[in-house]
Amino acid sequence: MTCLLVRAVACAAPAPAGHKTTGHGRPQPKIRVTRGVRSKVSAARAGMDGGTSAAPPEPAIAPDAVINLEFGDPTMYEAFWREVGERAAVAIPGWSGMSYFSNAQSLCWFLDPEFEREVRRVHRLVGNAAVDDGYHLVVGTGATQLFQAAMYALSPAGAQWPVGVVSPAPYYSSYPPQTDLLLSGFYRWAGDANAFDGDGHIELVCSPNNPDGAIREAVLSSESGKAIHDLVYYWPQYTPITGAAAHDIMLFTMSKVTGHAGARLGWALVKDRGVAKKMVYFVDRSTIGVSQDSQLRAAKILAVVSDAYGPDEEDDTRLRLFDFARRRMEERWRALRAAVAATGAFSLPEETAGHCNFSRQTVAAYPAFAWLRCEKDGVEDCAEFLRGHGIVARGGEQFGGDARCVRVNMLDRDGVFDVLIDRLFSIT
Amino acid sequence: MTCLLVRAVACAAPAPAGHKTTGHGRPQPKIRVTRGVRSKVSAARAGMDGGTSAAPPEPAIAPDAVINLEFGDPTMYEAFWREVGERAAVAIPGWSGMSYFSNAQSLCWFLDPEFEREVRRVHRLVGNAAVDDGYHLVVGTGATQLFQAAMYALSPAGAQWPVGVVSPAPYYSSYPPQTDLLLSGFYRWAGDANAFDGDGHIELVCSPNNPDGAIREAVLSSESGKAIHDLVYYWPQYTPITGAAAHDIMLFTMSKVTGHAGARLGWALVKDRGVAKKMVYFVDRSTIGVSQDSQLRAAKILAVVSDAYGPDEEDDTRLRLFDFARRRMEERWRALRAAVAATGAFSLPEETAGHCNFSRQTVAAYPAFAWLRCEKDGVEDCAEFLRGHGIVARGGEQFGGDARCVRVNMLDRDGVFDVLIDRLFSIT
Repeated sequence: MTCLLVRAVACAAPAPAGHKTTGHGRPQPKIRVTRGVRSKVSAARAGMDGGTSAAPPEPAIAPDAVINLEFGDPTMYEAFWREVGERAAVAIPGWSGMSYFSNAQSLCWFLDPEFEREVRRVHRLVGNAAVDDGYHLVVGTGATQLFQAAMYALSPAGAQWPVGVVSPAPYYSSYPPQTDLLLSGFYRWAGDANAFDGDGHIELVCSPNNPDGAIREAVLSSESGKAIHDLVYYWPQYTPITGAAAHDIMLFTMSKVTGHAGARLGWALVKDRGVAKKMVYFVDRSTIGVSQDSQLRAAKILAVVSDAYGPDEEDDTRLRLFDFARRRMEERWRALRAAVAATGAFSLPEETAGHCNFSRQTVAAYPAFAWLRCEKDGVEDCAEFLRGHGIVARGGEQFGGDARCVRVNMLDRDGVFDVLIDRLFSIT
Repeated sequence: MTCLLVRAVACAAPAPAGHKTTGHGRPQPKIRVTRGVRSKVSAARAGMDGGTSAAPPEPAIAPDAVINLEFGDPTMYEAFWREVGERAAVAIPGWSGMSYFSNAQSLCWFLDPEFEREVRRVHRLVGNAAVDDGYHLVVGTGATQLFQAAMYALSPAGAQWPVGVVSPAPYYSSYPPQTDLLLSGFYRWAGDANAFDGDGHIELVCSPNNPDGAIREAVLSSESGKAIHDLVYYWPQYTPITGAAAHDIMLFTMSKVTGHAGARLGWALVKDRGVAKKMVYFVDRSTIGVSQDSQLRAAKILAVVSDAYGPDEEDDTRLRLFDFARRRMEERWRALRAAVAATGAFSLPEETAGHCNFSRQTVAAYPAFAWLRCEKDGVEDCAEFLRGHGIVARGGEQFGGDARCVRVNMLDRDGVFDVLIDRLFSIT
């Protein structure tokens, strides 16, 4: 079997509290990209050609290639943006972006005003966050940077010990190593929220949850600590939108709404002005703001998304991102559940449903990851078992959970997903 | 006097080791931008129009406006990129940048291969870094992120106490608060390198130095610690290029080469593969990589820079970045020295010169900041004194130096610089 993703074979363990002893280096998928893709990207660089009419085909997958579904790469969305074509392209003149400042008058002085406008507009369209209720918007280099900025901002002043950072297991596997990256004197990873009994805390509430898609509320009391709501999957393609979330700090990212993970662009909606100021200070000190190029481009991308649902838009559903993504997720989950049922070797969390205020109908949840449990006797390590079948997924113990579970990315390209389904069907 | 930069009036002190007590929030210049600038940027967003033939004019400055030269905003370069016009524009199609990975096979898996190629090419052209001697390239969200990645990578494994981070005063005022942002258990700011006598250290060597332009070498022994070379100003417009630097870790940034500060894009040349891997790990954990949009655009910008010095290029000096910037810096330093000599109220470091391998002639150094000392009797705080004359600059004590000194940005737009010179002439 040739290796599509050679270096991904060994899953990285989450970094313990100390560093140096941890595996420095993310497992690196070795993706063979067809010549067409690279040459087309090169053409786009060369100048003002949007390069959208003849967009690249999906990379070819050798029949015996290992497929890597360990990360959350949202390449499924490429097909949508290819279809949208030229109207999503953006041109940036050479003289743009000389200043560190995007909006000097604003609390978040590195936040592009048009990006802010489009973020607020898409939240209003979808109804997933109470964006107009006095919320401050802080932009970050992905939700990852904002999660750290939020921990910094919420750490109690003058505390003798770092405050404990917790999340109920299974939790996003990157929370522990991101929290303890620098062994901060302000905060420290303290594990499963359900097992925590310390004084004071910061609770990370991921809903829908990474890895298992569960809808969550804080499990610890707001009287003894603070919460950060990681809502990066709270969009209608993944879950029914049951109301406008209105928590103190809510994190979102382009990666999971439109699929633009390479932009490294996230935002936080923050209720308290003082907390927002501290988060801005953190982003200033850690990276002196956020790429203006990514913000400029994201403003355009989000405008295309919202425009497609406007009253004046022609009835061209090809331009409706949430329709596209929901349809794709529904098909994929149906295929996955059929494969799991046929093989008998696995189980999945039960399907849930609810009334979605956005689509105005009752719909099922289609999480961005599958939390797959191996039910075969004698298999204690599901990730290892799947690796033997040419599928790389992230092992459950990295999420503070069971090694019989794995997290499988549901957002890869069609070709990769099809191979996943074929292989699952073949497992008996 | 109306305020061009209202909130910049109070200079932020560098953050002490603790947080919460420090001023959260960067002083924010309130820049009045002409309607032309904003509407032109909006036009560029709208689609495929490079918007370069009718690029924006400089913002107007009211005669009584406070001018802010506290930051290092490199807006001087806007005039150059306006002149270059359309050939520096870049178009990004909607389908670009869905994956987290730019080059999965590479040690630095989020480094765009074309950006890497252009970075190496411009170093070869200028001869300022031994880029081909086995150096690994790590991209970061500005040199700021890489400076933190480097400290992380160089911190001794399993140490009982954080290693001391030092730099000879006057040092870049952001070093202390960036170092101590999270009160890391791995490293801690330890002040002036010349006053340091601890066991083990990380020395920050900024050359040419921010704030005073001095050419520096490490002052502490490499036997007792490590060095990070911050070479962001080691380009021919600022200083003679006397050789290809070949230190263990060298930091550079787009902000100071081409003026694209808004891109938040820096790079490190790293000799040791293990150190480079740890730096990559840090950038992965803190922001999961670096904006692909900024890298794509920077590859284009750097290609334009190098192309202009190629053998096939027409003899159009308007397209030669280093010629433009050097000429501009020479004019500005001549004007500044004339004003300082005329007023008698100030002094500047003496002009230095050397043979530049790039221009093949002996040239003077023209630092990106002026380190201005007030020589007037009774003036103990030069920043406060200048503020009374409508000039905001950063006080010397923030650099671990003398409050009679200030750092003045030499890279602002022509109009702002002209106002600076007029005002200095008027001070007696």
